[in-house]
Amino acid sequence: MQDIRGFWAVVPAGGAGTRLWPLSRAARPKFLLDLTGSGRTLLQATVDRLEPLTGERVVVVTGAAHASAVREQLPGLAAERVLAEPSPRDSMAAIGLAAAVVEREDPDSVIGSFAADHVIPDAEAFRTVIREAVDVARDGHLVTIGIEPTFPATGFGYIRAGSPLEGAPTALHAVEFVEKPDAERAREYVESGEFRWNAGMFVVRASVLLDLLGQWHPELAAGVRAIAADPSRLDELWPDLTKIAIDHAVAEPAAAAGHVVVVPAAFGWDDVGDFASLATLLPDAGGLRVLGEAGDITAVDATGVVVATGGRRVAVVGLDDVVVVDTPDAVLVTTRARAQEVKAVVDALKAEGRTDLT
Amino acid sequence: MQDIRGFWAVVPAGGAGTRLWPLSRAARPKFLLDLTGSGRTLLQATVDRLEPLTGERVVVVTGAAHASAVREQLPGLAAERVLAEPSPRDSMAAIGLAAAVVEREDPDSVIGSFAADHVIPDAEAFRTVIREAVDVARDGHLVTIGIEPTFPATGFGYIRAGSPLEGAPTALHAVEFVEKPDAERAREYVESGEFRWNAGMFVVRASVLLDLLGQWHPELAAGVRAIAADPSRLDELWPDLTKIAIDHAVAEPAAAAGHVVVVPAAFGWDDVGDFASLATLLPDAGGLRVLGEAGDITAVDATGVVVATGGRRVAVVGLDDVVVVDTPDAVLVTTRARAQEVKAVVDALKAEGRTDLT
Repeated sequence: MQDIRGFWAVVPAGGAGTRLWPLSRAARPKFLLDLTGSGRTLLQATVDRLEPLTGERVVVVTGAAHASAVREQLPGLAAERVLAEPSPRDSMAAIGLAAAVVEREDPDSVIGSFAADHVIPDAEAFRTVIREAVDVARDGHLVTIGIEPTFPATGFGYIRAGSPLEGAPTALHAVEFVEKPDAERAREYVESGEFRWNAGMFVVRASVLLDLLGQWHPELAAGVRAIAADPSRLDELWPDLTKIAIDHAVAEPAAAAGHVVVVPAAFGWDDVGDFASLATLLPDAGGLRVLGEAGDITAVDATGVVVATGGRRVAVVGLDDVVVVDTPDAVLVTTRARAQEVKAVVDALKAEGRTDLT
Repeated sequence: MQDIRGFWAVVPAGGAGTRLWPLSRAARPKFLLDLTGSGRTLLQATVDRLEPLTGERVVVVTGAAHASAVREQLPGLAAERVLAEPSPRDSMAAIGLAAAVVEREDPDSVIGSFAADHVIPDAEAFRTVIREAVDVARDGHLVTIGIEPTFPATGFGYIRAGSPLEGAPTALHAVEFVEKPDAERAREYVESGEFRWNAGMFVVRASVLLDLLGQWHPELAAGVRAIAADPSRLDELWPDLTKIAIDHAVAEPAAAAGHVVVVPAAFGWDDVGDFASLATLLPDAGGLRVLGEAGDITAVDATGVVVATGGRRVAVVGLDDVVVVDTPDAVLVTTRARAQEVKAVVDALKAEGRTDLT
């Protein structure tokens, strides 16, 4: 299969991955880490997965602190294709700036936005879905990918799908985006068959995205286009850009106005939000899943996940569904069920002023 | 109170403390460690506890590999009071040699043998019991200390006590020594009121101990007396000494022959056999017991015991009765209930040839 003419990938590389502490740190966020033992970081795997569709048409948007690490991890990418945000201004400014940069270089382009820290094991299935999404996006729709839920997740937002889009193989009109539900509503959503996980993937013409943004946030659209026109104005204009997520800025109002299409997807997808989620991505060796140096682990009657990256022996005796994460300067012990609460440790360390450990 | 004229302490300092791995190692056994956070190692605390009774009359018997560490930890002890065993030959050879050395220096002496790795929080109560034991021992009895059981332990041997010893405040005739029982027998023992824990403490005239030994193991008695008479013969004679525990060599046959007396004791006593046992010796801070650097620990809704000696952050989230032991080159995670099985980790490491970690 050929790459798709005029299709560009936009890869927002942000997010600290606080619930993956102590593996993930502010200075070493999860997208820079190999969390699956594949030998490639999540960022590299994201670009690898897109490359057959985009060739070299990839733009990464990341915090200034991580720009050099991103360039190191992606040596095939031209340095100017890594956009460094002077400060965090949420996803709309990041993706909007990338869209504006691509729009100037390739006015007819379709962009696809894919977070740098998600895991999709079946890259071929992913690309099949994106090909349809790009076809639909060429007609002027804002296209999102709706992942078939495999359980009533409370950690993701959902997209409610409606009637089929005429002429498309599988695409449906998107009725609405809904926020992360509570457990009962999540169950209702999944049982209804109408709702799909919002994986935060958008495929859209760069100009359509910026024009939609212009309807609801004209200053923001004008700001990112001004920076794209004259990159030397980045530091001047960036701090005044509205801090808003792309879902709120464009996707929700566009869905309400009937402009959004959802392409259903059944491929495995995970945002690796915590160690319970990470565990499901690792091979199962007798109930124990391992990341790092398997040879450093001595497990006696133990199940769960052990991350051995501290260069030390990690011994676990008689615990089920345990999470043990060993790093050179910190060790975490918790359970799969409590993995979400790791954030409390990071909060406590910040309260202690121990930013060297966060 | 004065020290006791002619009373000598014999302190066998041996045992690896395998179930306290990774804190305890072959090269750094538990008697050399401060396991209670008191600032004193178990060996130092043992000698501290005896000093008001013995003054400088203390002999430590330890493996050749640990003799210099023992001398460093006990700078007040004359170097020749630390006897270095060329190889492990069990407790009878160790205590017998110390008895023979003391007998030559002080023929009328009473010795008390107290392991270097036990914890007795109430030193005053301990000394009160030992004073009675020494008085009884002067009359030629082999005196043992019978600890009042606080639960039906299966990890200790028991002593069955009989009728009161005439003229003594609390001492009783000892009927028999019994090995570590199963759970049901342990319950019977404790309910009967006749049985007490055998803490491995013996108080006896040095000459009486060696003469009793001479009845059942004449070569062994002659061997240790020959070494005491000419210490230069240690390496020549030591390897041929019978390898046997003092209980089997002397205490059990002497009890059967009516020579053994037990002094009941109600003081707290612990052999710190594993981390569950260690936990009970540490202060309870909201359900969590800590040894090492409390400031290195971040606990969120966690109970159990955390040992932080690795110089790293140790975070525990949402686990009850957990055991986490962090050291510079190894970390252990288990539960109080499974703490006995830590030995399996050491066995696995040995099987891997990783003696650097054991």
